[in-house]
Amino acid sequence: MGARLSHLGLAVAAHDDVIVFWRDLLGLTLSPVEHVESEGVAVAMLALEPRADGTGGAIELLQPDPGDNAVARFLDKRGPGIHHVALSVDDIDGLVHRLREHRVRLINAEPRPGAHGTRVVFVHPKSTGGVLVELVQEPAGDS
Amino acid sequence: MGARLSHLGLAVAAHDDVIVFWRDLLGLTLSPVEHVESEGVAVAMLALEPRADGTGGAIELLQPDPGDNAVARFLDKRGPGIHHVALSVDDIDGLVHRLREHRVRLINAEPRPGAHGTRVVFVHPKSTGGVLVELVQEPAGDS
Repeated sequence: MGARLSHLGLAVAAHDDVIVFWRDLLGLTLSPVEHVESEGVAVAMLALEPRADGTGGAIELLQPDPGDNAVARFLDKRGPGIHHVALSVDDIDGLVHRLREHRVRLINAEPRPGAHGTRVVFVHPKSTGGVLVELVQEPAGDS
Repeated sequence: MGARLSHLGLAVAAHDDVIVFWRDLLGLTLSPVEHVESEGVAVAMLALEPRADGTGGAIELLQPDPGDNAVARFLDKRGPGIHHVALSVDDIDGLVHRLREHRVRLINAEPRPGAHGTRVVFVHPKSTGGVLVELVQEPAGDS
């Protein structure tokens, strides 16, 4: 058991609104922007400083495409801010089983494929203290 | 330059509302609850799984005292959720100098004493993408 920070998803109207702060001033390393067609967002990953094991998590800037999509609706309703917190776990199937036993509200009750071969489950903010939590299991041999 | 996750501050009406999820189900390690008189909050730190260097950041549950205080006002206005993101940095004075040069909005323009010998500066959500960011410098010899 236990969990590590994978990333913090930050919904913004435009990457350019905040890139100076996160990249140029704080000094986080920006990866090439990826467009996720299925979600209608452009994703900019800003790596936190790696720790001794080479990982440190990241800030993920989510910029919605024009039109209707989940991040655009989030921005309309709440303005920019933390959209979700993603935590890496080692046994997502066992964890989901325990969560369901305790009637934790899940957005998807079975792990679904995420980016880069991960498997992910979203936990409803009602069960976490008001924040959407993404649980992420890295592909085997990649953790 | 660069930054590491120190903690995510999560405002909740009561620790007990969410402790089963974070401690018992996710398996984060709970430290003894501390009461911070000056802020009017009871703080429960839940350690994320340590990485190779022994640090991994934490989820910080903030439960306001009865009456008026910043966390109570946050809950009244927005409900439970992420109150701030705290990042550890190595040269807070140099960073604050750069932030001020770029007209980043700071809550306190000079580092002030935080918990456990740290020095902290808060950056206004307007400059970060909608989230209050706490910059933390650990005491010398402790990072």
